[in-house]
Amino acid sequence: MVSGFATPSHRLPHEDVLAHLPVSTKLEYAKGRSIYDGECPSTCLYLITEGKVMLSQIAEDGSEVVLGILGPDEVFGQSAFLAVPPRNEKTSALEKTTLMMWPIATVEDLVTRRPRLAVALLQIMADRTAEFARRIESFSKDNVERRLARTLLSFSERLGTPQPDGSVQMMPFTHGMLARYVGTSREVITQNMNQFRQRGLLSYSRQRIALHPHALARLLAVNPLSASPKADGPLEANSAWL
Amino acid sequence: MVSGFATPSHRLPHEDVLAHLPVSTKLEYAKGRSIYDGECPSTCLYLITEGKVMLSQIAEDGSEVVLGILGPDEVFGQSAFLAVPPRNEKTSALEKTTLMMWPIATVEDLVTRRPRLAVALLQIMADRTAEFARRIESFSKDNVERRLARTLLSFSERLGTPQPDGSVQMMPFTHGMLARYVGTSREVITQNMNQFRQRGLLSYSRQRIALHPHALARLLAVNPLSASPKADGPLEANSAWL
Repeated sequence: MVSGFATPSHRLPHEDVLAHLPVSTKLEYAKGRSIYDGECPSTCLYLITEGKVMLSQIAEDGSEVVLGILGPDEVFGQSAFLAVPPRNEKTSALEKTTLMMWPIATVEDLVTRRPRLAVALLQIMADRTAEFARRIESFSKDNVERRLARTLLSFSERLGTPQPDGSVQMMPFTHGMLARYVGTSREVITQNMNQFRQRGLLSYSRQRIALHPHALARLLAVNPLSASPKADGPLEANSAWL
Repeated sequence: MVSGFATPSHRLPHEDVLAHLPVSTKLEYAKGRSIYDGECPSTCLYLITEGKVMLSQIAEDGSEVVLGILGPDEVFGQSAFLAVPPRNEKTSALEKTTLMMWPIATVEDLVTRRPRLAVALLQIMADRTAEFARRIESFSKDNVERRLARTLLSFSERLGTPQPDGSVQMMPFTHGMLARYVGTSREVITQNMNQFRQRGLLSYSRQRIALHPHALARLLAVNPLSASPKADGPLEANSAWL
């Protein structure tokens, strides 16, 4: 059994999930509208055909932790594969959004008839898991400035539009949303965004954020100031002194 | 298409991945031995038949962030489904461990012939993603004490042996390993473990940890002291003031 190892360079490129899912009715969601939440958990797999969707986790205190922002051709709702889907997930349309959806029983049935769909879904989920692992790494090692820089860079790569001058334009994520993604307060995000702006790393208005990815990447290439351990308090730090 | 929604209560229980994977040669790993790492990324799916495996992420500074501890009948290596497997993953045997493994090309081939294997793997990955989402929530909201309490509870549920007196016995996780999981220093873990011990939440020796899950759960049921926002510094806080 343990022979014929495929090496990464021999692997086929990712399966195209779109090629394996049948067309379904399209549903339109207005900006801000909930797609599913704890009251009414997902029982479907969703595909974004237009717009952007915010995936969140509802914390014990009722506040939201943003897990991700997805754009066109991305899939969500995979937790419906679980016998008991988590009741603390929430998804909503971040702008006017069009979705296709398939009841998970239908997807399971499709998988048995179109096995490449299974491989495509496994690849999408491995990707999502790897992304969450990078988030866990960043929470363990980075201060807020670096977490915010990584968040903006990752959003710009996935959701931005490159401009001829090397900058990338993105939708104007609110400081509140960035705070719920980075795990800090809106005030701290505003303070850091102002500093990034003063240092020429980005500019922003109500209409858009224009990011300079190379400058932000240079900031991340510099190791953070090594800090001495401090005692744990109710507001203690994540840091690199393991 | 969008009809016949399966609700959670109508869902079948989880597919048994073991029922769908053929028997492979067993490989034995001594305590501490690396299974795969960045130098030699995974190209296989692994099943633990005996022992415990630590999954880590290698941070940019070369240090390890522990992503999870897996035990018998658990599966890992799913990132091999990606065309370019992440090069910062590391897995090693936490104790003497026996594994079965299948090259991912073989698994993809099996999936096309045994579609219920695909569903089983999708469920395992949805579970892993949901677990990582809870970690991200905890990093966003909890101080170190609460993160450590959640970690110990989750390890006790998954890897512990319940005792007649209501306590749960677990292997003696080192403070260094707990620090790399919780995202803090070994010193802070030692300080918190001492406090947990003094408060009667657990006892530990070189041989084992004995945990009192109900007492730890009570600690988590109490909301953390509400803390006032503070300015962001290199060692700033995660907190709940969003």
